[in-house]
Amino acid sequence: MPTALRRATVHRLPMRSPDDVGALDAAIAQGAIDPAGIIAILGKTEGNGCVNDFTRAFAVRSLQTLLGRHVDGDAINQIAMVMSGGTEGALSPHMIVFEARDASGETQPRAFDKSLALGRARTPLLPSEHLGRMQQVAQVAAGVRAAMADAGIADAADVHYVQVKCPLLTMERIEAAEARGTTTAVRDTLKSMSFSRGASALGAAVALGELTLSDLSDAMICADYARYSERAATSGGVELLDHEIMVAGMSADWTGPLAIDHAVMADAIDIEPARAALARLGIDSAGQVPAAARGRIAAVLAKAEAAQSGRLRGQRHTMLDDSDIASTRHARAFVGGALAGLFGFTDLFVSGGAEHQGPDGGGPIAIIVERT
Amino acid sequence: MPTALRRATVHRLPMRSPDDVGALDAAIAQGAIDPAGIIAILGKTEGNGCVNDFTRAFAVRSLQTLLGRHVDGDAINQIAMVMSGGTEGALSPHMIVFEARDASGETQPRAFDKSLALGRARTPLLPSEHLGRMQQVAQVAAGVRAAMADAGIADAADVHYVQVKCPLLTMERIEAAEARGTTTAVRDTLKSMSFSRGASALGAAVALGELTLSDLSDAMICADYARYSERAATSGGVELLDHEIMVAGMSADWTGPLAIDHAVMADAIDIEPARAALARLGIDSAGQVPAAARGRIAAVLAKAEAAQSGRLRGQRHTMLDDSDIASTRHARAFVGGALAGLFGFTDLFVSGGAEHQGPDGGGPIAIIVERT
Amino acid sequence: MPTALRRATVHRLPMRSPDDVGALDAAIAQGAIDPAGIIAILGKTEGNGCVNDFTRAFAVRSLQTLLGRHVDGDAINQIAMVMSGGTEGALSPHMIVFEARDASGETQPRAFDKSLALGRARTPLLPSEHLGRMQQVAQVAAGVRAAMADAGIADAADVHYVQVKCPLLTMERIEAAEARGTTTAVRDTLKSMSFSRGASALGAAVALGELTLSDLSDAMICADYARYSERAATSGGVELLDHEIMVAGMSADWTGPLAIDHAVMADAIDIEPARAALARLGIDSAGQVPAAARGRIAAVLAKAEAAQSGRLRGQRHTMLDDSDIASTRHARAFVGGALAGLFGFTDLFVSGGAEHQGPDGGGPIAIIVERT
Amino acid sequence: MPTALRRATVHRLPMRSPDDVGALDAAIAQGAIDPAGIIAILGKTEGNGCVNDFTRAFAVRSLQTLLGRHVDGDAINQIAMVMSGGTEGALSPHMIVFEARDASGETQPRAFDKSLALGRARTPLLPSEHLGRMQQVAQVAAGVRAAMADAGIADAADVHYVQVKCPLLTMERIEAAEARGTTTAVRDTLKSMSFSRGASALGAAVALGELTLSDLSDAMICADYARYSERAATSGGVELLDHEIMVAGMSADWTGPLAIDHAVMADAIDIEPARAALARLGIDSAGQVPAAARGRIAAVLAKAEAAQSGRLRGQRHTMLDDSDIASTRHARAFVGGALAGLFGFTDLFVSGGAEHQGPDGGGPIAIIVERT
Repeated sequence: MPTALRRATVHRLPMRSPDDVGALDAAIAQGAIDPAGIIAILGKTEGNGCVNDFTRAFAVRSLQTLLGRHVDGDAINQIAMVMSGGTEGALSPHMIVFEARDASGETQPRAFDKSLALGRARTPLLPSEHLGRMQQVAQVAAGVRAAMADAGIADAADVHYVQVKCPLLTMERIEAAEARGTTTAVRDTLKSMSFSRGASALGAAVALGELTLSDLSDAMICADYARYSERAATSGGVELLDHEIMVAGMSADWTGPLAIDHAVMADAIDIEPARAALARLGIDSAGQVPAAARGRIAAVLAKAEAAQSGRLRGQRHTMLDDSDIASTRHARAFVGGALAGLFGFTDLFVSGGAEHQGPDGGGPIAIIVERT
Repeated sequence: MPTALRRATVHRLPMRSPDDVGALDAAIAQGAIDPAGIIAILGKTEGNGCVNDFTRAFAVRSLQTLLGRHVDGDAINQIAMVMSGGTEGALSPHMIVFEARDASGETQPRAFDKSLALGRARTPLLPSEHLGRMQQVAQVAAGVRAAMADAGIADAADVHYVQVKCPLLTMERIEAAEARGTTTAVRDTLKSMSFSRGASALGAAVALGELTLSDLSDAMICADYARYSERAATSGGVELLDHEIMVAGMSADWTGPLAIDHAVMADAIDIEPARAALARLGIDSAGQVPAAARGRIAAVLAKAEAAQSGRLRGQRHTMLDDSDIASTRHARAFVGGALAGLFGFTDLFVSGGAEHQGPDGGGPIAIIVERT
Repeated sequence: MPTALRRATVHRLPMRSPDDVGALDAAIAQGAIDPAGIIAILGKTEGNGCVNDFTRAFAVRSLQTLLGRHVDGDAINQIAMVMSGGTEGALSPHMIVFEARDASGETQPRAFDKSLALGRARTPLLPSEHLGRMQQVAQVAAGVRAAMADAGIADAADVHYVQVKCPLLTMERIEAAEARGTTTAVRDTLKSMSFSRGASALGAAVALGELTLSDLSDAMICADYARYSERAATSGGVELLDHEIMVAGMSADWTGPLAIDHAVMADAIDIEPARAALARLGIDSAGQVPAAARGRIAAVLAKAEAAQSGRLRGQRHTMLDDSDIASTRHARAFVGGALAGLFGFTDLFVSGGAEHQGPDGGGPIAIIVERT
Repeated sequence: MPTALRRATVHRLPMRSPDDVGALDAAIAQGAIDPAGIIAILGKTEGNGCVNDFTRAFAVRSLQTLLGRHVDGDAINQIAMVMSGGTEGALSPHMIVFEARDASGETQPRAFDKSLALGRARTPLLPSEHLGRMQQVAQVAAGVRAAMADAGIADAADVHYVQVKCPLLTMERIEAAEARGTTTAVRDTLKSMSFSRGASALGAAVALGELTLSDLSDAMICADYARYSERAATSGGVELLDHEIMVAGMSADWTGPLAIDHAVMADAIDIEPARAALARLGIDSAGQVPAAARGRIAAVLAKAEAAQSGRLRGQRHTMLDDSDIASTRHARAFVGGALAGLFGFTDLFVSGGAEHQGPDGGGPIAIIVERT
């Protein structure tokens, strides 16, 4: 069912430190961003992106403090804040602010049939004993459908990016579940993050029609990596017990020059599908995207991981055996370099933890471009 | 002065561990490599590439043991063994064996005017008090000229890659120099490696006519990074007190399908000059080099470093501020990803320590291709 | 000149994360701590303690937010907040709150002649070109004397711990100084922290009569490590341009059961001087301090560093050559273990960066005990 | 059954690098060590002690090369070479050579009833599907009994240290087992090392009478950590498919001044039991062992691990949540510091991987002393 006409804007802002919200502050002050219209803020912060990464919480705290000067607590809680740690290699710390504005009053003729559409939803609380199991898959699938409806996207094929922030299990939550006479899928916080991300990705896949619920089972979650979504990006947080979902796609209910498309990287250096997606979005470059065109790329959102096979195109990699540097850190640096070699800039949103998100060693990539 | 006709071969072999020389062993057994013709072995081993990286010495020990079954000790000492640690991201551990064979007996018409030419030289011992100073620059310049003559390369413009293995200062050597009444340029082993690499690169630049000796001074070494060589790759080792130099270029005194060219990356993601060099070598690809062409690329030799400016195309990078991961490790992973995105494979010889080798944040890249 | 009678209290509180101020919140709510009386808060946070450690700023932010509910901004600015990163090994994240209360109204007879005395002072702003030079030494010496007066400590021998938080040089400050026609002692942020800590420690030594100003010179700072203070603990921060100084010692102007003493560890495992200091404070244990006595130890404040000599009692250590783990991290873990083996608990304030604080490889240690 | 009179010697030798066997070379040259009498060589090498630690293999290679100049290949294969990586904190790289000589010709009266006794044994090959299961426990138990017989130790109470080098599972071995129609206990190399170490430790416990086989089951291995040996130290290696076992204890069949005892550390800083064991061995010190006595301590062999509980005596530790530094590295540094604070020197054999070796967070410690 159509929704009132809206216009999405996407702002990519540098961060000079994990608690630096100065660029957002200035954009709000200049009227470039309306804090009341912010739907989501994704950020790449400069921690290790693994367990003891406090830059994520520090960034959220700073954003909440800034936005608290403009909107009330309820409004802040509505904003999906997804801080992803890890700016390895030359990846540049930045935030991406997704904003939606009412465009029903716009009178000029629309230049495009469909434009970037954003929707969000929250699921009910997820009982600890459902984490990493089919109940979570189903719950996230329902949430993704709700977010699609919120975005005015009727056809799943028009969805190009599903961001799910999902919960995890702490020892307290595990023990509470066991006290209730249930068992949790895992008894380890770090593993619970993998299972939660994986189940959430499968939930997105179900909502998008990539997989069907009856094809899946508890045993497949974080085991059968041949099942995956081509458009989900999931990440866990300790601060929520439900899911925050943001969907981005194309809809006739939205206007404006922004458009989104996606591709799947079959491995860490499979950049040609991304080049093809860029071409579909109107930026056609053999070779690195020329400087003149880079400014039209509003955001690049990709997943990176170290292939479990231990090989990339037959050649051994050492990422999984390196006890000094976590494999996700290696993967972000390497995939970041490959993508920066294509796009020509380094403030790319490359995140780790890609269970059931793209094939083993690869991952989905979404690109948002300002069409001319 | 022309030298007897020779033919160079370049063998890129995987390593399953730092001490794995099985692929070389097999190649020798099959007659694909003649141990007596080996000029140099470059290796990427899977240590951290910094101070406490013992994979390099372990690889050399294993190579010496293997080759000792085929040639005598003097012959082994003649081979330049340059092990570079650090296979971050998906970079794959491998060795590159450079071999020269006498071709004066070949009767078939030559397909190419010039072919890959290899030459080597050793300098006299470098007094500790000359390390990192103009005397080292001059000594290396002389060594590079000698290696060019050995290669039968008369025109410096035909040189595309100069590999210099240089000495460093240990506390014993520093104290011995001071006992002799002299002072060393630095009193720190790690810094001495930078100064030695830098002075060696400037020496190569002088021999190649990129810079003139009179333009340089002690004060510029590891300070004025606007002066650099576009074709030098230098690395330090504790096990030598002189320099081992290998030069690779093009010469009419050499035959065979192999050819070499080079480019300079202005920054970590400046891959277009490498694409142009590939095109000059006969592999012309918009986008990633297609699988069918990859097998013709015999070797890729590049330098990586974190830009001292702290920025890449205006965007902040965090490599120099990361106390958990050395900046050279970050740089190898990121540049490795960018180059793998171009070449389509991961056994690339990407090394760190790029003082006066290419501009700040960038570096030289040499490519060896088998022409059709 | 005597000051009004005061009573110091020292509260050691656990931190469940860098932003966890719950224990302080509860202590204030219970009336155990009067926020208006807080002089200083020292904290051990769980970051890497090196350049990119954001846990320190996160902890300060959280403390400011909490205290802002109780006292005004000026009062918060008066509190010296010294967050030291790095809880390696089993060192436990915690904060130590130093509080002073007016005791002039106390009528009960005093049990002790002298008790723990706390004083603080701030210096004027330090011009960038004075950092790491004799002017900083002199400025800190003056500040330490002022803090001693504030504490009512007349005799320098009664001072047992001097905490100095000192500034550092950013590239902006270096460039501003050069624009003014001056030069800075160093042109590197990390080095500037060493120089600032070292000069501050020497300033404390001068104020305490351990060294005389005329003995010192610019050239000795961070060079002649035979000159050091036995009671200084200095640490740098980017957020201040002056120095925050806290002095702890013994004074007849203070009452209460707390007492402080200090010792110097000649090397990382020289725990016997600490045992002797504990004995002087009334806790005499051969072997590990028994559980019954541990509760009387209010705080342990120590410095740790990796001996520049590369040896500890003649045996080689590898801390300075480890490119995977910073030497300060190694040192904190090892010294932390040695001290925990003596004290029997792990919430010890062990910090790095010990230039001119104790001899090379060793450091000062201060102990605060509740006398019976 | 009594064995011919033997005398054990223990030599603790420094290593200047992982491949430095110079001290052993010199000792052999001087006649201080008879290579034909070497039973075992334990070494602490300066790698990360985790998966990608090549210093261990490098040290073994160097030892084999050295010893190959003195004894034949079979004799070298008999020597148990256990290289343990990780010299964190100030722990000093060293090797400990255990030598046994025939003493049946000694005529002087024996000073002691019992002296240090050494025995060794190898088990049959362990099928991959038995690793981490009760079959491994039983196999190791039998091996330990054989080593006790070899040592002339009849009473299990006289055994103070059991060193087991055990195999691990590679993907090839896992796949081969599955091809045979069996399953392995785990499908991950790193986990297989834990399971192998744990099962080996339980096997030692059974042989020593600490546990009975019927008390144990597959499900308890690496799960029920309340079951452990107080005297086992186990470590895995890829280069063997069986177990190499060395037992050290006291026997009337051995002569000489060396004696061994052991203790159990209940946690990382529980040094008092070690002090008590030292006292039983004749070195009685309140406080740090004085310099004059240190020379009589021939070897200290301890295990270190991060308590799974996340706490040490109620205080939170961060070792298990640190994604930058492996918990075993933290633990070795911290326990190393605690023990160095007791013993007064840093060439202590502290190793990680303590599954079923001592209680959670603690571990066994064995001390060898030269009695007067």
